[in-house]
Amino acid sequence: MAGLSVHSVLVTGANRGIGLGLVQHFLRMPKPPQWIFAGCRDPKGQRAQELQNLASKHSNIIIIPLEVSDPASIKAAAAKVGEHLGGSGLNLLINNAGLLKARTLDTETLEDMSEVYTTNTIGPLLMAQAFLPLLKKAAQGSPGSGLSCSKAAIVNISSTGGSIGALLTWNRIQATSYRCSKAALNMLSKCQSLAYKEHGILCVALHPGWVQTDLGAAAGLPPPTTVDDSVQGILKVLSSLSEKETGAFLDWEGKVIPW
Amino acid sequence: MAGLSVHSVLVTGANRGIGLGLVQHFLRMPKPPQWIFAGCRDPKGQRAQELQNLASKHSNIIIIPLEVSDPASIKAAAAKVGEHLGGSGLNLLINNAGLLKARTLDTETLEDMSEVYTTNTIGPLLMAQAFLPLLKKAAQGSPGSGLSCSKAAIVNISSTGGSIGALLTWNRIQATSYRCSKAALNMLSKCQSLAYKEHGILCVALHPGWVQTDLGAAAGLPPPTTVDDSVQGILKVLSSLSEKETGAFLDWEGKVIPW
Ligand SMILES: NC(=O)c1ccc[n+]([C@@H]2O[C@H](COP(=O)([O-])OP(=O)(O)OC[C@H]3O[C@@H](n4cnc5c(N)ncnc54)[C@H](OP(=O)(O)O)[C@@H]3O)[C@@H](O)[C@H]2O)c1
Ligand SMILES: NC(=O)c1ccc[n+]([C@@H]2O[C@H](COP(=O)([O-])OP(=O)(O)OC[C@H]3O[C@@H](n4cnc5c(N)ncnc54)[C@H](OP(=O)(O)O)[C@@H]3O)[C@@H](O)[C@H]2O)c1
Repeated sequence: MAGLSVHSVLVTGANRGIGLGLVQHFLRMPKPPQWIFAGCRDPKGQRAQELQNLASKHSNIIIIPLEVSDPASIKAAAAKVGEHLGGSGLNLLINNAGLLKARTLDTETLEDMSEVYTTNTIGPLLMAQAFLPLLKKAAQGSPGSGLSCSKAAIVNISSTGGSIGALLTWNRIQATSYRCSKAALNMLSKCQSLAYKEHGILCVALHPGWVQTDLGAAAGLPPPTTVDDSVQGILKVLSSLSEKETGAFLDWEGKVIPW
Repeated sequence: MAGLSVHSVLVTGANRGIGLGLVQHFLRMPKPPQWIFAGCRDPKGQRAQELQNLASKHSNIIIIPLEVSDPASIKAAAAKVGEHLGGSGLNLLINNAGLLKARTLDTETLEDMSEVYTTNTIGPLLMAQAFLPLLKKAAQGSPGSGLSCSKAAIVNISSTGGSIGALLTWNRIQATSYRCSKAALNMLSKCQSLAYKEHGILCVALHPGWVQTDLGAAAGLPPPTTVDDSVQGILKVLSSLSEKETGAFLDWEGKVIPW
């Protein structure tokens, strides 16, 4: 394991849950990133308080207003991040922002299906498009020919809920809109891995575990895994990835998940 | 192979391509369905001419105005079909209507991603919801305890383009919006198979082959398979399905496709 060493990282949905945990763990690294861009759709709001406190104490955290379902917001964010980085590229894009609506198959609606897909699937697509020039720049500026998360990578936070192969029994939280959006996100990750390999960019879909966040608690039962343990696992996995794993669907412990 | 014997079937997107081929083949069966409901979003339009001609000669073809991205149109269609059927149920719902937009990953847009998902994924979801009472009625009215397409089934016409596991190389027709929508449709099929098993309804995702239609020709190369051969294969596969296959992803020759 080479260890993760990034100059710059952007995390979407960074104001709470796993996104905030990622920011905190990046800060605590032996060699923290010079730039931690924390995407947040309502930086002035109540739910961004903890992130604001953190940013006021650490000058390498830059809060970026970012609504991933809005192409204009994404474009503005990419421009802002580009300005901060000056001539250098972005090593790591973590598409973490996500939405779950707990509905049964019979009560799913067009509106929820669309909204969840827009945030969970289209958002990561548009984010990668907008940040591609910065990711390419990071890849070009890094030595060596292989792929790695320290060089340039897109990490899509997916879910076992999006695994068709693992879906053998039905449970209370049917959340078809969520499952469909994450299966589609897995397809997107695979497409991105094929399209961006030649640019030196690694792409993976990652399941973070069943984690103690608002989203994780939507199943009604208390989730088993803390944000700290999940994020620690995720960062360990990221540090171990090479070109062999680009296009894979892995969990926070590095295990391959069936499509 | 028990042979397919249905009292009633509904095909969406029945005015051209594979949908029209299905209607024609149902007509030619030794024992044709009593009701062939042909969903068509513009029954008065130029593209519905062939279907109109066919319907004028065969009283068991009922053209149903049906735009699958519009919940109101779906509701109206379900009401109309219910009226025609009187007290009896619907045996077979074939979600065939589909859309492909040929774009590269870099040129995909929010609008195309949404439009394709709405027709290819949300449409089949809403169709199944609206026709569930009629499908349940057909299942209840059929003898035997197993599942079959002659009893009650939802057939989602998917695509190998939606197979994440089979996507190992990139080609000219990247069509990420299409791939994502079909991967999501496969997830939907799996969810439906789990939810509707207890109601006696079989659910599958079917790849029709690479077929000589407008959509099939979008890849620029001439597709190898005729509509006739594809539809013949599909109907043979449908006639062979039992509860063992509910939730599966099969092609027009009965082969299992990886998720
Ligand atoms: N927790 C689990 O057990 C679990 C399991 C599998 C996968 N995941 C995945 O892990 C990721 C993070 O989830 P979490 O558990 O940390 O959830 P969470 O605590 O509910 O946080 C979700 C984050 O996403 C942001 N967000 C939602 N929609 C957004 C949009 N349209 N634009 C920008 N930001 C948006 C939220 O911002 P606001 O504060 O403004 O709402 C929030 O920061 C998600 O992709 C989720 O699907 C979680
Ligand atoms: N052809 C292939 O090689 C191939 C391969 C894999 C999978 N498939 C799948 O097979 C299915 C049929 O495709 P095809 O090749 O027959 O395509 P096609 O010849 O282009 O016909 C598509 C049909 O879907 C209808 N449709 C599209 N959007 C609709 C909507 N929102 N509401 C109602 N109807 C709508 C069209 O109606 P209009 O005439 O009004 O546009 C038309 O009847 C699709 O699901 C496709 O993804 C095809």
